[in-house]
Amino acid sequence: MSLITRTKLSVRFHECDPLQIVWHGNYLKYFEEGREDFGKKYGISYLDVKEKGFSTPVVKSVCEHKLPLKYGDEFEVVSKFINSKAAKIIFEYEIFCRDQLICKGETVQVFTDEKGLVLMNPTFFSSWKEKMGIE
Amino acid sequence: MSLITRTKLSVRFHECDPLQIVWHGNYLKYFEEGREDFGKKYGISYLDVKEKGFSTPVVKSVCEHKLPLKYGDEFEVVSKFINSKAAKIIFEYEIFCRDQLICKGETVQVFTDEKGLVLMNPTFFSSWKEKMGIE
Amino acid sequence: MSLITRTKLSVRFHECDPLQIVWHGNYLKYFEEGREDFGKKYGISYLDVKEKGFSTPVVKSVCEHKLPLKYGDEFEVVSKFINSKAAKIIFEYEIFCRDQLICKGETVQVFTDEKGLVLMNPTFFSSWKEKMGIE
Amino acid sequence: MSLITRTKLSVRFHECDPLQIVWHGNYLKYFEEGREDFGKKYGISYLDVKEKGFSTPVVKSVCEHKLPLKYGDEFEVVSKFINSKAAKIIFEYEIFCRDQLICKGETVQVFTDEKGLVLMNPTFFSSWKEKMGIE
Repeated sequence: MSLITRTKLSVRFHECDPLQIVWHGNYLKYFEEGREDFGKKYGISYLDVKEKGFSTPVVKSVCEHKLPLKYGDEFEVVSKFINSKAAKIIFEYEIFCRDQLICKGETVQVFTDEKGLVLMNPTFFSSWKEKMGIE
Repeated sequence: MSLITRTKLSVRFHECDPLQIVWHGNYLKYFEEGREDFGKKYGISYLDVKEKGFSTPVVKSVCEHKLPLKYGDEFEVVSKFINSKAAKIIFEYEIFCRDQLICKGETVQVFTDEKGLVLMNPTFFSSWKEKMGIE
Repeated sequence: MSLITRTKLSVRFHECDPLQIVWHGNYLKYFEEGREDFGKKYGISYLDVKEKGFSTPVVKSVCEHKLPLKYGDEFEVVSKFINSKAAKIIFEYEIFCRDQLICKGETVQVFTDEKGLVLMNPTFFSSWKEKMGIE
Repeated sequence: MSLITRTKLSVRFHECDPLQIVWHGNYLKYFEEGREDFGKKYGISYLDVKEKGFSTPVVKSVCEHKLPLKYGDEFEVVSKFINSKAAKIIFEYEIFCRDQLICKGETVQVFTDEKGLVLMNPTFFSSWKEKMGIE
């Protein structure tokens, strides 16, 4: 079973650059909006995790662009949770506009608490995985 | 005596919009860089103030544009401290490029501590003003 | 008759700063989203205006903050068209969250064509005003 | 011979997020500043390339974070040109602060002209490589 969220967004004017397209770095904002939309749907958003005493900083991000988005475009971010044995939260993303693939991406997050990096999955995250039917 | 800082900056590509000019909201970033440059020079930066137990959120900002900046432009932010009887930090800004006035602006900041808004000047700020020769 | 648009938005994580609140400059993004939402509803958006051969750069922006927005907040931008005899587009904004006023603001835009600043209202804009019942 | 530029920057307040660290997506801004600094030094900046009739949109970006940057940090972006047989501009980046590696990254850019994607190296780019002693 795939854990996926589809988030509808539209390009904002201030996200576009002098090439008349969305500035490449702004796709990480779209990924974040997709990831948080997933988090709200499945109970693992930034605020959910914070309440448990953890932060989940992004330690890796990748974006591969196929086609540009322009101002006025409406698009969909597909955020897919990728299971991992490590104490990490991994998402893969695809953005589509008018049935065309705009870009693909990935983010990797780790867990930190007030002492620093957490090397084992926090209990709340293991429970969450179990509840989601992921092992 | 005027308390003024002059900060040299250059336009970054991602700050420009499809009109090929700096997006208007990004001037507030330039004002912030000017203000913080002032703060470092005169000992009243964000980190100085934080150390004293206060934050200084911006409660008002104004920007009036005369000419646009384009990618590649180098410019100067002039940040001028405006004295006030109220418990506020007020700055006026002017940005110049090639001896032309690009824009004028203003920000107003208040003091907050862990209890909320502070209505009287914090002691450290009164002392700072005295040291600067401002009454 | 008032020309008003109400736009529902929510705070994005990357819009928040170390004070745990929306960075003050990001409210100009919200105003832009409100203004463009108005423009789409009433046929005077950036792309509509561009098609007529004009740009409408922002020449003044003001924001006065009453209360901060935090991550997770959902809010409403009220964008109100303010009529003017001058060749300008003026909007006033109010942002509300949980029935509380968060901030008030204003933007002023002028018209430019390929030759530069346009001092008289472009024909399309006069027609638009007439159609909207504004004189 | 390595073509490298070292660019000194400092963290701006509005680049930091509620975790009190630079928001991960902002590192792509630092990479861009490093890349453009390289471009100005070696005559292959955005404006140089534009003058030749080409754009160089980013088609891939990667960032791997080792340590966070905080507000107040001064750091160095090392931008290294990576030669490729393909019609691409590839850079690798490393950011250092207080002699510690903060992050590593990569960007890949392609060439486009008014007709679209350019599959062969533009003449100006081949000449530039030759002048730089790269084959």
